[in-house]
Amino acid sequence: MIKDPKQTAILSKIRKPGDVRDLEGDQMEVLAQEIRDIIISQVSAHGGHLAPSLGVVELTLALFRSFDLERDKLVWDVGHQAYAHKLLTGRVDRFDTLRQKGGLSGFPRMAESPYDHFGVGHSSTSISAALGMAMARDLKGEDHEVVAVIGDGSLTAGLAFEGLNQAGDLGRKMVVVLNDNEMSISRNVGALSQFLSRKMTSPFLQRLKSDVEGLLATIPKIGGDLAVYAKRYGDSVKSFFTPGILFEAFHFTYVGPIDGHDTATMVKVFEEVKKINKPVLVHVMTKKGKGYEPAESDPSHYHGVGQFVPETGLARKFSGLGLPSYTSIFGSTLCSLAARDEKIMAITAAMPEGTGTECFHKNYPERFVDVGICEQHAVTFAAGLATEGYKPAVAIYSTFLQRAYDQVVHDVCLQNLNVNFFLDRGGLVGEDGATHHGVYDFSFLRHIPNLVVMAPKDEAELARMMATAFDHNGPCAVRYPRGTGVGAKVPATPKPLPIGEGELMRDGTDAAIITIGSRVYPAVEAAMELVEDGLDVAVFNTRFVKPLPEAQLLELAGRFERILLVEENALAGGFGSAVLELFVARGVLDGKKIAQLGVPDEFIEHATQKELRQMLGIDKDGIKRGLLGLCG
Amino acid sequence: MIKDPKQTAILSKIRKPGDVRDLEGDQMEVLAQEIRDIIISQVSAHGGHLAPSLGVVELTLALFRSFDLERDKLVWDVGHQAYAHKLLTGRVDRFDTLRQKGGLSGFPRMAESPYDHFGVGHSSTSISAALGMAMARDLKGEDHEVVAVIGDGSLTAGLAFEGLNQAGDLGRKMVVVLNDNEMSISRNVGALSQFLSRKMTSPFLQRLKSDVEGLLATIPKIGGDLAVYAKRYGDSVKSFFTPGILFEAFHFTYVGPIDGHDTATMVKVFEEVKKINKPVLVHVMTKKGKGYEPAESDPSHYHGVGQFVPETGLARKFSGLGLPSYTSIFGSTLCSLAARDEKIMAITAAMPEGTGTECFHKNYPERFVDVGICEQHAVTFAAGLATEGYKPAVAIYSTFLQRAYDQVVHDVCLQNLNVNFFLDRGGLVGEDGATHHGVYDFSFLRHIPNLVVMAPKDEAELARMMATAFDHNGPCAVRYPRGTGVGAKVPATPKPLPIGEGELMRDGTDAAIITIGSRVYPAVEAAMELVEDGLDVAVFNTRFVKPLPEAQLLELAGRFERILLVEENALAGGFGSAVLELFVARGVLDGKKIAQLGVPDEFIEHATQKELRQMLGIDKDGIKRGLLGLCG
Repeated sequence: MIKDPKQTAILSKIRKPGDVRDLEGDQMEVLAQEIRDIIISQVSAHGGHLAPSLGVVELTLALFRSFDLERDKLVWDVGHQAYAHKLLTGRVDRFDTLRQKGGLSGFPRMAESPYDHFGVGHSSTSISAALGMAMARDLKGEDHEVVAVIGDGSLTAGLAFEGLNQAGDLGRKMVVVLNDNEMSISRNVGALSQFLSRKMTSPFLQRLKSDVEGLLATIPKIGGDLAVYAKRYGDSVKSFFTPGILFEAFHFTYVGPIDGHDTATMVKVFEEVKKINKPVLVHVMTKKGKGYEPAESDPSHYHGVGQFVPETGLARKFSGLGLPSYTSIFGSTLCSLAARDEKIMAITAAMPEGTGTECFHKNYPERFVDVGICEQHAVTFAAGLATEGYKPAVAIYSTFLQRAYDQVVHDVCLQNLNVNFFLDRGGLVGEDGATHHGVYDFSFLRHIPNLVVMAPKDEAELARMMATAFDHNGPCAVRYPRGTGVGAKVPATPKPLPIGEGELMRDGTDAAIITIGSRVYPAVEAAMELVEDGLDVAVFNTRFVKPLPEAQLLELAGRFERILLVEENALAGGFGSAVLELFVARGVLDGKKIAQLGVPDEFIEHATQKELRQMLGIDKDGIKRGLLGLCG
Repeated sequence: MIKDPKQTAILSKIRKPGDVRDLEGDQMEVLAQEIRDIIISQVSAHGGHLAPSLGVVELTLALFRSFDLERDKLVWDVGHQAYAHKLLTGRVDRFDTLRQKGGLSGFPRMAESPYDHFGVGHSSTSISAALGMAMARDLKGEDHEVVAVIGDGSLTAGLAFEGLNQAGDLGRKMVVVLNDNEMSISRNVGALSQFLSRKMTSPFLQRLKSDVEGLLATIPKIGGDLAVYAKRYGDSVKSFFTPGILFEAFHFTYVGPIDGHDTATMVKVFEEVKKINKPVLVHVMTKKGKGYEPAESDPSHYHGVGQFVPETGLARKFSGLGLPSYTSIFGSTLCSLAARDEKIMAITAAMPEGTGTECFHKNYPERFVDVGICEQHAVTFAAGLATEGYKPAVAIYSTFLQRAYDQVVHDVCLQNLNVNFFLDRGGLVGEDGATHHGVYDFSFLRHIPNLVVMAPKDEAELARMMATAFDHNGPCAVRYPRGTGVGAKVPATPKPLPIGEGELMRDGTDAAIITIGSRVYPAVEAAMELVEDGLDVAVFNTRFVKPLPEAQLLELAGRFERILLVEENALAGGFGSAVLELFVARGVLDGKKIAQLGVPDEFIEHATQKELRQMLGIDKDGIKRGLLGLCG
């Protein structure tokens, strides 16, 4: 039972951001609770990003009270924390459509609301975007505020550092709110996070701190006015030992840390900050999952969740097949392969849970590295390991590998190193929508020389492709979909596949479907149903986008006039176009009737994977239609 | 007259890196001079990266003396400073083949020498790669040293920060040598560089410094032992005010700054550093272009140069056409367009000279931003500007835009913002080789929805495409080659082209060449010569990789059975495959004989552009052969 926002006393009356400014202090507390209730209710019923959004309810309220979103600009980093923002910007009535087909996006989106000033989904873009807005403001001679809200996890990415470095240099008026919950998606890593936590683990800083304390200890011995001066100086020097040291070094004025659940204090601070005519960093401490006990105590699990029972926090059980996800098959297979090959290592960019590498971490802690939200470094670091004979597995979502494209080209493939990329969430991811679909990987990977690119039709093939990747002395990429497989039995000791060899799933006489990955079984089902239409259709599982199984494809081209190419990737430069290039190169195009199914040249919105595959005509029925069109 | 390395007294006897360790102090000085002479002589005769390599001669010698390259690992960042390294690692006899076909690469390359421990060409990879090597060493229980040498410019890139952040966290033994010449390729930007220069421009640090000084001023009033303690503490606190503060915050032990032209001191420091069992940063001050006056006084110009007269430093004049480069046409057109449109801005990532944006900088300083070596930030920052109605031109080399692929997708195109990418060095770049060819841009850009992708056949079309890009309210990319155009007259007021419309350069009856960009004129020449072979060949300048001129291409497909697709880009997923996809989608493939020319699926080495185009069969003669093959 989803709580009805219309039943809320205060939230239901907020029609635009400015309405928050008219509330009394105690109304703010009620509003915060209403927002939490609605978020928990909505996410428990439909899934979504729970813990991040719960953590910033008060911060959002404070920002809306202090800044005027009709003129000031507010840039959320990553955007998975923007549910309160959505509820307060005229979208309360549509909040029950969140992440559903035709409904609200799970992330800020410029096209969705004039108050979403910058669209997002990937991390660490906010400082750069906000700096652009601040410069534009100054060029236009305007005087509104520009605010970026960035998590401490997002701050570890190089892009955020690049933005910080230039923002400090340009010195333009802007506010960066550091939302510090000591987490990225999982626990944070990196020297920076220790720094923020003020553990001052650096021996240099520890020594310096003790020296300053020693120096200050001399002060009581000084008499008179001098003592007053010395004390004042000493306090200033002592104040150096805050995380501010870092941001001040980048020419930001540092304010904080302040309690991110104390709206009144935050508002006071923001009002002061608005008077500062240069870059300011406000360090706000929040608790991920705040106000919902299960999420507070396990924020990683409740970062992004499926449906759950709000009273208990327990996941809802489905009557489905209960198949393991590709992610978990990847994780368990990685462990079993690593048991037999001590050169296998695993690298994740802040997503040990999301990529299924926790069990590897537990079993082989010394061979596991979480680099933080640093996809570029993950890949170049892996290249360094590979030069010394290790076989790193870079476990990553397809959409996030986009951030390391140059490193894949320049550091891994150009040097033909044995770095293996396992791209989870390849293809349409569903509810996370346009920023998260992994529908470009075939296109941005297959032109890179030396790289082997594979996609499995099921769990068993995933395991064998993993064995293939580690067995092959060169770079490989395996992309597999979000969700569960078909229930194929995963071999305990997966054998490598012959590289560049596909498999004929089903022979036929009238036409051939040449496909790969998640589309293989739907194609087989389509072919089986087409028998009723009097068509006998072959289905070929290509397995390798690169190198293509050339001999087998040419054999098919020799036998079939009608060929349907099907993939769950952008048609532009994807798998199908690779087959076309091969046919051109071998001169077998003439006389062919070929059609292609795949993702068209537009950004694909959010909906369930099933709905999206249906919309794009790449599900079983769409493949049937495509084949009938080709044979009509 | 190139100096002959065989004539050198000492260099000629260095056959392996260890030989440097046997030299006496004064021999080292002679060796340094010999290395400089050979580098100046070689680069003046054939071009190359002069100033960076001259700046690190003593540093290289010190590293070779202190570290044993048979077991220790040495990772150069960017690699354009590795000429001394090459001369000292058994390549002295082949140094005269530098950057020439079949000769030595201009960058470190693992396949070229066992002493090139990591290949490179793009910046900021060294810390990540070295950290991977250090971790591999520890896993194997080995104990050699790992050294990364990174410039202060490279340090501004996010990737370097990501590596630094994790290196400090993991705490493994490694040495990062910061080669600080206060330059990236041009003058450095960013808060970090001011920090390194110890100008302490941050008001916070200034205030703190004065407070510390105030505190220390109280010390003389204290008597006895206390004064001794206070002084000791005070000295420690004073020592805080070095660039070390930043690196120590990242858990690096900071050493420096030391004179990067004083070999003996550097060797002493390195020997001490080897005893430290954790990450150490050695801050070395060098002068770019050191030892060659013209390069010392204008290091940007002498960063990478063509042939020059060594005695004067003046560029050699050629008897060629003296045509302006595409780079300069871009720069002057940008200025003239900006004169009429105040929303046009220009962004460069540390390459104002290389991208031709200096004149824009001079004329419109407030609309120009050099972001440093930060391609990711450049793009997201541009997106921020575009949300406010500005039309930023991101002027960048094709190969460097690879580093911002995700930002192009996620921040610009998904939001359909009017950010315009001008990709210089699109296609084969020649002597810079595999790391620098811009032969993937069609493939990594054309699958991105909303993006218009163009390539001009000549200078005049470049100007018109620039006008098109700024006129179009959405993202555009224009890619153009290194070097000069054909001498086409550039219009003073370039008019926008109709988007998605190509031009028939020449009609014909026997076959059609469908091509784009740099290949249009060679195709026309080929077609003209083919008349002698009795073939009447049409040539179509497609202009737009995306959106393709669909109606015109279908008209051609309707008239011609034989079609040759030609491009200076990877065949995989490139321009030609876009045409194939269109033909499939419109069902016009049947009955066609199609062939493709382009860059095959392998990394292309260095040679002149002319040699490479010939080798790959995409020059006039190659196109002729391709057409004859198709019509044979």
